[in-house]
Amino acid sequence: MKLKSTALSLVAAVALSFSAYAQTDSLMLRKIFDEALVNGQCYENLRYLCKKIGPRLSGSAGAQKSVEWSKKLMESYGFDKVYLQEVMVPHWVRGEKEQGFIVTGAKRTPVALAALGMSVGTPKTGITAEVIELQSLQELEALGEDKIKGKIVFFNRPFDERFIEAGGAYGTAGDQRNAGPAAASKYGAVAVIVRSLTSALDNYPHTGGTSYGTNKPIPAAALSTVAANKLSAMLKQKSTVPVKFYLKTNCQSLPDVLSYNVIGEIKGTDNNNNKYITVGGHLDSWDLAEGAHDDGTGVMQSAEVLRIFKALGYRPKNNIRAVFFMNEENGHKGGIKYAEQALANKEEHIAAIETDEGGFTPRGFSFERATPAFLKNINQQWKPLFEPYEADRLTVGGGGTDIGPLRQTHPNIQLIGFRPDSQRYFDIHHTPNDVFENVNKRELELGAASIASLIYLIDQHGLKF
Amino acid sequence: MKLKSTALSLVAAVALSFSAYAQTDSLMLRKIFDEALVNGQCYENLRYLCKKIGPRLSGSAGAQKSVEWSKKLMESYGFDKVYLQEVMVPHWVRGEKEQGFIVTGAKRTPVALAALGMSVGTPKTGITAEVIELQSLQELEALGEDKIKGKIVFFNRPFDERFIEAGGAYGTAGDQRNAGPAAASKYGAVAVIVRSLTSALDNYPHTGGTSYGTNKPIPAAALSTVAANKLSAMLKQKSTVPVKFYLKTNCQSLPDVLSYNVIGEIKGTDNNNNKYITVGGHLDSWDLAEGAHDDGTGVMQSAEVLRIFKALGYRPKNNIRAVFFMNEENGHKGGIKYAEQALANKEEHIAAIETDEGGFTPRGFSFERATPAFLKNINQQWKPLFEPYEADRLTVGGGGTDIGPLRQTHPNIQLIGFRPDSQRYFDIHHTPNDVFENVNKRELELGAASIASLIYLIDQHGLKF
Repeated sequence: MKLKSTALSLVAAVALSFSAYAQTDSLMLRKIFDEALVNGQCYENLRYLCKKIGPRLSGSAGAQKSVEWSKKLMESYGFDKVYLQEVMVPHWVRGEKEQGFIVTGAKRTPVALAALGMSVGTPKTGITAEVIELQSLQELEALGEDKIKGKIVFFNRPFDERFIEAGGAYGTAGDQRNAGPAAASKYGAVAVIVRSLTSALDNYPHTGGTSYGTNKPIPAAALSTVAANKLSAMLKQKSTVPVKFYLKTNCQSLPDVLSYNVIGEIKGTDNNNNKYITVGGHLDSWDLAEGAHDDGTGVMQSAEVLRIFKALGYRPKNNIRAVFFMNEENGHKGGIKYAEQALANKEEHIAAIETDEGGFTPRGFSFERATPAFLKNINQQWKPLFEPYEADRLTVGGGGTDIGPLRQTHPNIQLIGFRPDSQRYFDIHHTPNDVFENVNKRELELGAASIASLIYLIDQHGLKF
Repeated sequence: MKLKSTALSLVAAVALSFSAYAQTDSLMLRKIFDEALVNGQCYENLRYLCKKIGPRLSGSAGAQKSVEWSKKLMESYGFDKVYLQEVMVPHWVRGEKEQGFIVTGAKRTPVALAALGMSVGTPKTGITAEVIELQSLQELEALGEDKIKGKIVFFNRPFDERFIEAGGAYGTAGDQRNAGPAAASKYGAVAVIVRSLTSALDNYPHTGGTSYGTNKPIPAAALSTVAANKLSAMLKQKSTVPVKFYLKTNCQSLPDVLSYNVIGEIKGTDNNNNKYITVGGHLDSWDLAEGAHDDGTGVMQSAEVLRIFKALGYRPKNNIRAVFFMNEENGHKGGIKYAEQALANKEEHIAAIETDEGGFTPRGFSFERATPAFLKNINQQWKPLFEPYEADRLTVGGGGTDIGPLRQTHPNIQLIGFRPDSQRYFDIHHTPNDVFENVNKRELELGAASIASLIYLIDQHGLKF
């Protein structure tokens, strides 16, 4: 691309929105974006979190370090109140690096795999068994104990690439990892290996949580997509030598550990104000990753929202809270605790916004309690304000895991999901490749500004559409 | 992020558009996206172009190789007509790698720099002179010959981060590279060094074209942003030892070379049809880069549009042409030739779409000849069709460099720019880091599908809004 004069058309677009909609709101949004883009601090904060602290799975030393640093960070910004909220969290540890081999006769082909979070380890000698490849839990049910018992079940259904938002493909493939091990255990499988939940074809195994429910825990691990394709191809060859798989995982669950949500607040201007708007992401990450996009970007954007308000001298009507939730990845204990405490303290919550889909270019927000009338009105009144920033997709949809428990404790709350561009998230999700270097400074800042803008509008006008 | 059920809401969104708008068009767009996402070939084609051919500056062996391969590729797809269009192009060569030093007394600090395209080289012994740092061409004019003569002018105005689309910042900073050397030459500067046109803070110098007009050519080079900051800091120290700069560049312009636009066509169904819709990008790249996003993605998307139509058995009413333009980067000769030939052959051109802003997630399209009524109507009628694919920003704005000459030869044509997400483009633009690995498969495919969808709609309904 060569030089083009797109500059003028952009200025014109902003000016258009100035004249057509509330001047004050338009100007405030412009100030918010300017502050985020010119003086933004979330990118350098994220660098510290990723590079100086790094992995921070619940219960780990990294998680504790991140809690202490986050509290200091928010204190350094002079928020009105910064505190820790105690929460007991699971303490699962991976142990020594896993081993996996495709075994054909005397030949062992090593493949990349990683134990699923919360899974049990294999015996010290590992497990070797014949492999049965399945595409779905339905197929498992149809085959039954006869065909499954004593085998290693290999769930290999890939992402459905027809989804436009990658989260859709993740959502529909995800039962294999989430519920596959429990289901296979019911029929006597000795272990489960799962194709990594990603479109990318590479050598990273993508870890992630699984839960056994009341079923007997059996070892469970994710295979990289390259490894999954290789195993599948070997199974299809139908040679006379049966294709077996060997895995050795060394993970275990230790006793629960005391940890914390980290909370910063700017007080509302109303006296005795008891109304809250929450913005949050999760501070914990998987053990294999720096947790850059998942979810370092979310917590750093949440703090940035409050920093922007302070920098602009904006005094909100309502209390604005940034919450760094603990334990989103393998237990949701932080989110549950937050809702419990909000209820116990008789706080009134207007809205909660979760940012946990990566620090990519903002596209908009999804609202859980969005009637057709709500959608129509918010799009009429607020969409034009977000249009100059290209973050104007206001849709019905999920809020997020950490704010989810507020649904029960605060039936009037609006739960809102920040929706960035979704295409790259699952390339790096839950892998060692989820690193700071894969975050773009401007994309991160535009997201923080978009969230701050929405909170400003909710604070000023409420959400009575 | 954990599992979320975004899948259902996406399906609902598509269904909604089905009922509310023309069923046929909705279904066709869905087919186009499915074909691109499930059977897409542009990503693997791009891999070949980047990894097996690589840099392909006009006049180079790489450019010739890319022409031959592109023709074979389009022939392999069985398009109705595939041919080369002759065009004479400049042949600028960088020569040996450049050298640059900040010189303070006896101390020489090496910095990353790259000669600007079309610039003249220094004498073999290089050039050493005092540096004067300027922020703008206006500042240069104000200082005049007195202050400039004999010096190396250092243009160091950074990107204005307040632009939401990065192209705006590029557009407004770009005069330093494009016109700075010519302007400084007028006042007797001996060379020009320019801060790289990027927001990224790194060690890559970003090359790019400059033109001297009728002014005496003087050597000109881009500094990496890290180098520019270092030089600026040293200049601000105002030590007693003057800060000088040494550069040695080895570039030169050789005689023009015969090259080619590569053109593939699907014939329209009307007999004696003389109406055309063009989609194109440029095949040439800078010599330092694989030219992945600039503009390998654009040419591969253009071929993919025609491949998709063939795969779906779609017979267009109008002739659809994919044009791989030669020489966008340093002369625009391919674009000029294409328009000349279209005029000479008395072709009627309805629309031309250029894709040269990278292979990132599509956001929409900009239309050069968009009256308020056009914008209103196209947004009413077509925006809903693009909404499920999140490529629905239909705005007024530039088409592109290569299709630009059609503006004069075909006054009724609509020139359209494909607009992907802009945030990452200038991080890698015109650097050795513009490589295949920085392209995301799904983002590229979504772009190809968006363009194919727009062309389908234009082909079916015209552009008479």
